[in-house]
Amino acid sequence: MSRTLGAIAKALGGSLVGPADALIERLAPLATAGPNDLAFVAQARYASQIGSTQAGCLIVPPALLEAARVRGACLVTDDPYLYFAHLTQWWRREHEAAVEPGIHALASVHPSAQIGEGAHIGAFAVIGPEVRIGERCHIGSHVSLEAGAQIGADTHLHARVTVQRGCTLGARCVLHSGVVIGADGFGFANDQGRWVKIEQLGSVRIGDDVEIGANTCIDRGALDDTVIANGVKLDNLIQIGHNVQVGENTAMAGCVGVAGSAVIGANCTIGGGAVVLGHLSLADGVHISAASVVTRSIRAPGHYTGMFPIDDNAAWEKNAASLKQLNRLRERLKAVERAIEQAMKKSP
Amino acid sequence: MSRTLGAIAKALGGSLVGPADALIERLAPLATAGPNDLAFVAQARYASQIGSTQAGCLIVPPALLEAARVRGACLVTDDPYLYFAHLTQWWRREHEAAVEPGIHALASVHPSAQIGEGAHIGAFAVIGPEVRIGERCHIGSHVSLEAGAQIGADTHLHARVTVQRGCTLGARCVLHSGVVIGADGFGFANDQGRWVKIEQLGSVRIGDDVEIGANTCIDRGALDDTVIANGVKLDNLIQIGHNVQVGENTAMAGCVGVAGSAVIGANCTIGGGAVVLGHLSLADGVHISAASVVTRSIRAPGHYTGMFPIDDNAAWEKNAASLKQLNRLRERLKAVERAIEQAMKKSP
Amino acid sequence: MSRTLGAIAKALGGSLVGPADALIERLAPLATAGPNDLAFVAQARYASQIGSTQAGCLIVPPALLEAARVRGACLVTDDPYLYFAHLTQWWRREHEAAVEPGIHALASVHPSAQIGEGAHIGAFAVIGPEVRIGERCHIGSHVSLEAGAQIGADTHLHARVTVQRGCTLGARCVLHSGVVIGADGFGFANDQGRWVKIEQLGSVRIGDDVEIGANTCIDRGALDDTVIANGVKLDNLIQIGHNVQVGENTAMAGCVGVAGSAVIGANCTIGGGAVVLGHLSLADGVHISAASVVTRSIRAPGHYTGMFPIDDNAAWEKNAASLKQLNRLRERLKAVERAIEQAMKKSP
Repeated sequence: MSRTLGAIAKALGGSLVGPADALIERLAPLATAGPNDLAFVAQARYASQIGSTQAGCLIVPPALLEAARVRGACLVTDDPYLYFAHLTQWWRREHEAAVEPGIHALASVHPSAQIGEGAHIGAFAVIGPEVRIGERCHIGSHVSLEAGAQIGADTHLHARVTVQRGCTLGARCVLHSGVVIGADGFGFANDQGRWVKIEQLGSVRIGDDVEIGANTCIDRGALDDTVIANGVKLDNLIQIGHNVQVGENTAMAGCVGVAGSAVIGANCTIGGGAVVLGHLSLADGVHISAASVVTRSIRAPGHYTGMFPIDDNAAWEKNAASLKQLNRLRERLKAVERAIEQAMKKSP
Repeated sequence: MSRTLGAIAKALGGSLVGPADALIERLAPLATAGPNDLAFVAQARYASQIGSTQAGCLIVPPALLEAARVRGACLVTDDPYLYFAHLTQWWRREHEAAVEPGIHALASVHPSAQIGEGAHIGAFAVIGPEVRIGERCHIGSHVSLEAGAQIGADTHLHARVTVQRGCTLGARCVLHSGVVIGADGFGFANDQGRWVKIEQLGSVRIGDDVEIGANTCIDRGALDDTVIANGVKLDNLIQIGHNVQVGENTAMAGCVGVAGSAVIGANCTIGGGAVVLGHLSLADGVHISAASVVTRSIRAPGHYTGMFPIDDNAAWEKNAASLKQLNRLRERLKAVERAIEQAMKKSP
Repeated sequence: MSRTLGAIAKALGGSLVGPADALIERLAPLATAGPNDLAFVAQARYASQIGSTQAGCLIVPPALLEAARVRGACLVTDDPYLYFAHLTQWWRREHEAAVEPGIHALASVHPSAQIGEGAHIGAFAVIGPEVRIGERCHIGSHVSLEAGAQIGADTHLHARVTVQRGCTLGARCVLHSGVVIGADGFGFANDQGRWVKIEQLGSVRIGDDVEIGANTCIDRGALDDTVIANGVKLDNLIQIGHNVQVGENTAMAGCVGVAGSAVIGANCTIGGGAVVLGHLSLADGVHISAASVVTRSIRAPGHYTGMFPIDDNAAWEKNAASLKQLNRLRERLKAVERAIEQAMKKSP
């Protein structure tokens, strides 16, 4: 067991103030950390919490070193939150048994599929013809990779992911259970009331280091491909329509819906439950608040919001009723302004 | 066959007014019930419907006994809706063949898994190492229970449920198809634009008598666990973020999203499509209307709403345009009020 | 290879102006089409794009024939978008190998199931007792068809679709991965705070030519059935509650939620992320904008909207704050109007 403060500082850096041989039992939140636990204080403005935590050791920024050392051990680093992120990765590697390479006896692998060295294929997985799986991939149970799908090295598909014909994923991706990559985009022509299907002939291309949450769907393109750039992070239950493009390192929270052919820039964030309509563009660095509906292209980086403020129901009812007359209120106000203006003119 | 009025009254109580040997063919809605069907009238205010229904027998509250008996058989009980709920359970037990215990020949069960007496494990289920499954559990086909998952007695996992490493469920739960318990919470630290994953080291703990709808996702906690208390009912396609806590008997309708670390009290209801932002608290007995966005903690029980009222599109366009100038309208109104006030002062 | 302009015109009609033996490599969007590609211009108002495209051949309406022929080959048809839809279907048939009929050796098929001629059953599919599968159906891997489910001819269930006990699908349907048909509707009676389950005894009946997107859920009815009419098209991640009825050819975009017992007419469209509350009726030909919440029945066809307009966050904050006082603003405006009226009366 190497879970000592010294081993952590050696693996991840930072200056350790305290005993190198102190054993850490758990990474814990400040509020519930005990004397054998390691916690972090991300910013100086949380300094007030240093006094009350029972944590055995604190990861702190230099500005909090003095406050932290008087109460016990600390690890000093410029960005404690980032340090903590790396620490969770190290911690998991230390604690979890590595997955054994090999193909489960109950998987169905097409003879033409190419499986990289060190890959693991779980029980009841279906690997179709011409599929290529990179080295050290972890393909969970009940995964279905259809004809021609390609998976980059070190990518982890959790149980029950589906990647359909010809879709490609980069390296080091993580796809959670229930993800569907490459279902048909929603395209139909109307023939006198009846819908005629437009077959979706494009595909889905996903870059490196992409994470996709449980039950999220990314549809294949109609003619061109749907494209997810490197470093994109999507939460659970997100819908990405056909021909959408998502730029590098953009992150979306749960339940977002992006309609077809929207083009979203790099380094954007989209809050939970937001909707982006189709055929729009969002510039790089656009941040959309939760539950907002993007109905027009946004050309400038910045923070955008559109959401009805919650209120107690009785107050809401009154305001919502007034809202339906808002345009009339505006007309009435204009009339009042005019009346006053004329009265002013008359009065001496 | 025991589906007589007498058998029902014997099993579920209530006073039967009418022939005990009348055979019931179907439980039916008032509007479509026929002479061999049993329907219910929940409250006295639906009394007007008693005259027109063709139902062979009615479940009614005492206040409606007289109105009901003049038209035929009735079962009298204080809470007909609750009686009806119990009746559907009894009806289903009477009609459906019990699932046979045993492990399907095509399931993959790790030798270290413990499977309780009377449990059924379906085809192509994957039961991982150290999994514990309670007595009489029904584990559907394509279910995946990862290492260390624990399932309480009499719990029913429908086809294609995934419970990931170390997550626990109580007794008598029902999880519908496509549910994902214990996917990673959405946690990343930003390193100069690039996202660094925070491994999710917590788990998910679900109490007794919890029902979870199809394709709903409950993420594992970052450090502590995500916790769903006894008696919680979640509809389909709900997203529960990491470290959320949901109190006893709280119910959420479909498509709700609850962001990370929200704490929701007991006996709350959350309407369909509502969004609860992260790190908020909702008191016990809070009721959120459908499609509302909870952006702040709610300390008092009550009914809260925030949703744009629907209108015909032309009217909406005008009001929405005015809404963008609402603050300016308020300023203009203030100016008008001031002008009038001054005019008043001047006038004798 | 038959992918010449002549073969296309022969198969799909339209008048070809240009060389019948020109080989088409790709169907492509106008903007990225090359000299061996075929693109379409749907309407005369896109005429300006004809000059700049590099497409080898254009599908155009008669009004654009002159503009198109001066630049190269064209196919003339009254409705280019509809022509293009049929073309994508033809294209796919030409390019994709037909699925071989037969039952995969690793499927689990109950001896009482009836499987139509020419049907394909994929790996790890589970076909329960008394299931009936029509001719030429394509049942993907990991599909689960529970006892008594019926699937019409030529229907395609992609990998990992679940159809639960007794639910029925018509002919020529397409269900994408992760779809759940027939999970329990969300029904509970409250017994002093505790929820008592109402068993869902109805089923789901789906007509012909229905397409259902990835991870969409359609719940079984409580007593009667949930009914989806012929020609309905549902996108991904949609929730359809118990006892909902959806009329012919109605289409819904992604992430829509329809609560229990709503009755939606024929030829409606519902935009992405919209919510329809329970026990409402929508007339035929109602069009709901994305993210709108339908809180009352809509009796007249037309276009309806209710969504907070997005704005930059600072502007939104001011307007949202004013919105909470909207009813008071209205009262204040009324007071101002009254003051002016009285002043008018006084003034000579």
